[in-house]
Amino acid sequence: MRWKMNLKQIASLIDGSVKGDDGLEVSGLSPIDNIQANTIVVADNKDKMKLAERSSALAIIINKDFDSQLKPVIKVEHPMKAFIELMNHFYPKKIKTAGIHASAQIAEGVSIGKNVHIGANVVIEHGSKIGDNTVIRGNCHVGENVIIGKHCELFPNVTLYDDCIIGNHVVIHASTVIGSDGFGYSFIEDKHMKIPHVGNVIIEDNVEIGANTVVDRASLGSTRIGQGTKIDNLVQVAHSVTLGKNNILCAFTGIAGSTTCGDNVICAANVGISDHVTIEDNVTLGARTGVPPKKRLRAGNVYLGAPPRLIEKGIEIEIGINRLPKLHKSVKELKNKIKQLENQLVD
Amino acid sequence: MRWKMNLKQIASLIDGSVKGDDGLEVSGLSPIDNIQANTIVVADNKDKMKLAERSSALAIIINKDFDSQLKPVIKVEHPMKAFIELMNHFYPKKIKTAGIHASAQIAEGVSIGKNVHIGANVVIEHGSKIGDNTVIRGNCHVGENVIIGKHCELFPNVTLYDDCIIGNHVVIHASTVIGSDGFGYSFIEDKHMKIPHVGNVIIEDNVEIGANTVVDRASLGSTRIGQGTKIDNLVQVAHSVTLGKNNILCAFTGIAGSTTCGDNVICAANVGISDHVTIEDNVTLGARTGVPPKKRLRAGNVYLGAPPRLIEKGIEIEIGINRLPKLHKSVKELKNKIKQLENQLVD
Amino acid sequence: MRWKMNLKQIASLIDGSVKGDDGLEVSGLSPIDNIQANTIVVADNKDKMKLAERSSALAIIINKDFDSQLKPVIKVEHPMKAFIELMNHFYPKKIKTAGIHASAQIAEGVSIGKNVHIGANVVIEHGSKIGDNTVIRGNCHVGENVIIGKHCELFPNVTLYDDCIIGNHVVIHASTVIGSDGFGYSFIEDKHMKIPHVGNVIIEDNVEIGANTVVDRASLGSTRIGQGTKIDNLVQVAHSVTLGKNNILCAFTGIAGSTTCGDNVICAANVGISDHVTIEDNVTLGARTGVPPKKRLRAGNVYLGAPPRLIEKGIEIEIGINRLPKLHKSVKELKNKIKQLENQLVD
Repeated sequence: MRWKMNLKQIASLIDGSVKGDDGLEVSGLSPIDNIQANTIVVADNKDKMKLAERSSALAIIINKDFDSQLKPVIKVEHPMKAFIELMNHFYPKKIKTAGIHASAQIAEGVSIGKNVHIGANVVIEHGSKIGDNTVIRGNCHVGENVIIGKHCELFPNVTLYDDCIIGNHVVIHASTVIGSDGFGYSFIEDKHMKIPHVGNVIIEDNVEIGANTVVDRASLGSTRIGQGTKIDNLVQVAHSVTLGKNNILCAFTGIAGSTTCGDNVICAANVGISDHVTIEDNVTLGARTGVPPKKRLRAGNVYLGAPPRLIEKGIEIEIGINRLPKLHKSVKELKNKIKQLENQLVD
Repeated sequence: MRWKMNLKQIASLIDGSVKGDDGLEVSGLSPIDNIQANTIVVADNKDKMKLAERSSALAIIINKDFDSQLKPVIKVEHPMKAFIELMNHFYPKKIKTAGIHASAQIAEGVSIGKNVHIGANVVIEHGSKIGDNTVIRGNCHVGENVIIGKHCELFPNVTLYDDCIIGNHVVIHASTVIGSDGFGYSFIEDKHMKIPHVGNVIIEDNVEIGANTVVDRASLGSTRIGQGTKIDNLVQVAHSVTLGKNNILCAFTGIAGSTTCGDNVICAANVGISDHVTIEDNVTLGARTGVPPKKRLRAGNVYLGAPPRLIEKGIEIEIGINRLPKLHKSVKELKNKIKQLENQLVD
Repeated sequence: MRWKMNLKQIASLIDGSVKGDDGLEVSGLSPIDNIQANTIVVADNKDKMKLAERSSALAIIINKDFDSQLKPVIKVEHPMKAFIELMNHFYPKKIKTAGIHASAQIAEGVSIGKNVHIGANVVIEHGSKIGDNTVIRGNCHVGENVIIGKHCELFPNVTLYDDCIIGNHVVIHASTVIGSDGFGYSFIEDKHMKIPHVGNVIIEDNVEIGANTVVDRASLGSTRIGQGTKIDNLVQVAHSVTLGKNNILCAFTGIAGSTTCGDNVICAANVGISDHVTIEDNVTLGARTGVPPKKRLRAGNVYLGAPPRLIEKGIEIEIGINRLPKLHKSVKELKNKIKQLENQLVD
């Protein structure tokens, strides 16, 4: 998309004030790590500020904590929020036209709200309800008695199993599966006997879930994803897990059965949390942290490693491991020295 | 679902005997980690027994090894089996009506058994055979010359590639892929030349496979999943792998090419097994175990870590790592003491 | 498939020369780890040579560096290439008949090249272009303004989001998702505010991508997969990543936002690369290597561990960890000895 707009006009879109020549014309938005000439960028820390100032960007969006001698700036309260607003302005979200594609297979008695888009080859089974302004893209499969709220968006090839409940403003990306049976068996008489999974999954408002992720249903009761929680691609949330509000789960994170996370929990990539763990509010788990069963991690802490250690200890251990070859060598030398001392004393 | 039934009636459903007031009425089943008032729970170890006794559960299902002074109990031979039977009684599996949805695209010459359910938008290509009483839910794609046995269930959006063979009583969850090409290339003349994959996947009876899992076909011959093996979500089984009977593979486990597992092998979450490994019967691999290529792991052992170590050694090493910062400090102190001793001796 | 062909005939197919009785008849091809009687195998190293010679194979394909006293051989320049050619000869790739299935939902104005196969229930949205000789199997979903080149193959249930660009001779396996939104939020006023993703994904020629993999679109600009790169199942490539030519990414590898890989980079299984990392040409990362943010890994090196260490250091540390229990014991003994020495000196 090609456009030009001067700094004064841009500032007016984001409630900002220009320092510098406000008649200069910007012709695009750039990400901080790939800046094109004559574009505007956002900088919300020193590193980004340096990158922006040394770049061919025309201007920088910053907050009151920064200033530039090198480039015109637009000052706003929340630079990133302002930049997101500009992105939404210049690249407005495509609206899917309301309507049900002729090829969609919608069972009798399914309730569909106002202004809903249902794409080609979508299947919706009986007893389900779709809220107003929701978009269900092609090839999705919605089981029986599923409730989907308002303003949701399901990307193609999503599967929702029977009885799941999806709140409002929920986004689910392609090929993700919600409500599959939990992985539960009991080894009885030389066989793995399946534990039935007759519960469901409840996803609260404003949750976004990436592609090829799986959230399993509970055996009894519900697996629950709390309001505002964001889940990346290729994540596993097992049966009867409860996630609080505004959690962040990065790719390849797996959370085993009946574990509970509080609010604002962050799991970096490839975090593994065993079953029946309790993670309190505001805990952050670094990449590849592994948490054993039944642990409790205290509110506000940052953990690293497997088993998880408070970050200071975790870093100490990482350094300790790095110096292990030297340590082995030191101990060998000490052994020799002691032998010498012993010999001297015998003499 | 709301219901009430007294303990005597419940005991009769599971061939158990009541100790306590058998006229008391139960109004539900509870999982042990989320017990509701007036429900019945199962306890098959001491920890669960404690939880059950302290809870608002009305009664507990136990075996002959337990007794309760606090709650009425129902004694049975296999408590978990009895509880599963109650779940199946109170939440009977929904039966999909036999029939082929009008929108399903079934090639000429496909053989379909008795009492089969084929959902909306399913595709079945030529030469395939579907056994009696099998359910294929909406949006599944079954390739050419695939054989699916009796009493199987495919959840939505499953893909079966050409030539795969699925036994009886096999369950495959949504978006799982069976029979994709193995990841095999030969670097020749500055390019990765693809090794053709003209083999298939054979899945034996009573296997269950989770959602978004992948089982690759062999280059020549078959990838084989043994009878009764259970595979979680987001698992990778590579080309020419052979899994024995009753294995358990938890989420994010990956098994590389041509590896063989015996019977009753358990892989906890995020286990990585390299190519050409031999895992003997009854081996258990703890979470995040990593096995290098061509290793052989001996029958009946439990392993931890990467590389895998027998559990005792693995725990010793974990403790050793935990104490590393102290060890570095100790060695530093020893160095100083030795220097002092040396100085004393010189004096 | 049953066939018989003598060694002379086989040699002529692969431009090789027979040493031994060239009238002997071969009845199949065997993989090196599962050799059937009377078949021909390929051996391109000593270990395989041993396996082949001890097996019931009838003959072995080798290069000038090898010879056999035990079996007839066919000598060629590139044994693996020759074997691939034989596989392609005896198991010719099934050609999907050109044509558009009646159930495919193709929007008006979609441009479709010559000799294209579009399977049942495929959805292609407006503005998209499909190149000559491309195969799109059943249940795939192609969004708006997608460009797919010539001679591509999409397996079932693949999702391509809007605006993605796919080169020529690209293969994408089942349930893989290309172009989903990157995982980017800014925590503003107690909520995760979504950063729009209005960029796309560009996949260059001769790329192959496995099943249930995800490649996210860029926020602005493009995520790019370089020519000839091969990606396994269950891999995550995040927003704005750039991969060079001929990379290999094995299963469960995850590459975070804005990371750049050069050419010929190899990631073994379960490698995790954080955001804004630079991996130079010809780097190899061993299984489970974890790379912290903003690192630069130098061309041609092999790394192990998390954080990544040059292979020699990595092995040293692995050995050091293995000997940790002994090291703790040694240090304890040294402490005692020093105490004794101190006592002796006091005396």
